[in-house]
Amino acid sequence: MNCNLFITFEGPEGAGKTTVIQKIAERLAEENIDVLATREPGGIEIAEKIRSIILNPEHTAMDERTEALLYAGARSQHYFEKVRPALDAGKMVICDRFIDSSLAYQGYARGIGVDEVLSINEFAIGKKLPDMTILFDLAPEVGLARIHAHGDREVNRLDVESIAFHKKVREGYLQLVERYPERIHVVNADQNIERVVEDVWSLIYEAIQ
Amino acid sequence: MNCNLFITFEGPEGAGKTTVIQKIAERLAEENIDVLATREPGGIEIAEKIRSIILNPEHTAMDERTEALLYAGARSQHYFEKVRPALDAGKMVICDRFIDSSLAYQGYARGIGVDEVLSINEFAIGKKLPDMTILFDLAPEVGLARIHAHGDREVNRLDVESIAFHKKVREGYLQLVERYPERIHVVNADQNIERVVEDVWSLIYEAIQ
Repeated sequence: MNCNLFITFEGPEGAGKTTVIQKIAERLAEENIDVLATREPGGIEIAEKIRSIILNPEHTAMDERTEALLYAGARSQHYFEKVRPALDAGKMVICDRFIDSSLAYQGYARGIGVDEVLSINEFAIGKKLPDMTILFDLAPEVGLARIHAHGDREVNRLDVESIAFHKKVREGYLQLVERYPERIHVVNADQNIERVVEDVWSLIYEAIQ
Repeated sequence: MNCNLFITFEGPEGAGKTTVIQKIAERLAEENIDVLATREPGGIEIAEKIRSIILNPEHTAMDERTEALLYAGARSQHYFEKVRPALDAGKMVICDRFIDSSLAYQGYARGIGVDEVLSINEFAIGKKLPDMTILFDLAPEVGLARIHAHGDREVNRLDVESIAFHKKVREGYLQLVERYPERIHVVNADQNIERVVEDVWSLIYEAIQ
C-alpha cells in the first residue's frame, strides 16, 4: 500500500466537496491510514488574512492579476507550513481545492491564461503537482441553487459572479482533465451524496493499492 | 520636452528617498510639469491591506515565496488603479520603490532568484519596465543608523533583518545596474540632502529634454 499521497478535490461551490471529504477522511481513518484533511487557507494565519482580502465582497475593484497572485501567495504559505510537513511525515493529505482552482477560475474563466497562472503557481509551490485530483463535475446552476437553498454560509465575492462565468469555470476544469488525464479524475457530482462518496472512495482505494 | 515618464526611486531605508522625492515633486510643479508622486501601496485600499500583512512584525513564519507574491499582488493593484491611469492621462509619475525592490530584496538577497521574481512581476504589471530608475546608493550601516536616529516611524519587519541581509540587498541593486545600465542611474546618497536633490534633478532634467 502507498498511502503517502497528496490528493486534491476540485469543482464548483455546492458540489458537495466538503461533506464528501469529511466522509472520506473518516473512512481512511477506519482503514488506519494517517490522513490530514485540509483546505486553503487551512487555518494558517497569514493565508487566512490573504484569503479575507480576496473574498471581501467590497473589493470589486480587485485587479484580476492581483487576485491570482494573492491566491498563489496563500497557497504557498499553506503548502509549506502545513501540507508539505504532513507529506514529509508520511501522511496522506487530502485538500479541498488547490492549484487547479486557480487554473480554472483565474487562468481560464477570467482569461488571464492557464499557462501564465500555472507559471506563478509553480513559483509558489514548485513544479510538483498533486499525485491525484478528483474533479466534482456539476452544472453551475445546480451548484448555485444548492448554495442558496442551504444558506449554511455567507455568500462571498465569487458566488455573485454570473452563471456565464461559472460555466467558463466548468469548461476550464474539463480542459484541465484533457491536459492532465492521468492526474485528474472526474466524478459526477449530480447524484446523491452517498453515491458520490462511493465513486470517490473507489478512486482513492485503487490509488493506494 | 517629454514629461510623460514613469520614474522610480530605489535604495535602502534611510537613504533619504522620501524627502528627495518630495522636493523633486515641488520642483517639477514649479516647472509646470503635471506630476503624480506615489509609493507602493499608495493609498490603494487593497494594496494597503496586502502591505500590512507583509510588514506585520508578528509574521516571522512568512514563506519567502509568499512574500514575493504578495509584493507583486500589491504592485499590480497600485499600478493598474493609480500609476497607469496617470500615465495614460499624460502625467509624469514618480514612485518610491517599484519592481527593482522585489528583484533586489526577494530575488537577490533572499536568494529566490532575480529571474524568477522578475517573471512573477511581469505577470503582475506586464513586461514594460519604468522609463527611468534612480538608485540611492548607501552603505546599509549608514541607512540603518539614520532610521534609528530619527525614530520618525515604527520599525518594521524588514528593518530588523541583519546587516548581512541589507548588504546583499545593496549588491543586488548594483547587479541590477549592470543588467539595466540604460534604465538605472546611481546617485550617491551618502552626502547632504541638497546635493542628492541636485544630482537627482540633473538626471530628470536631462531625461525630459
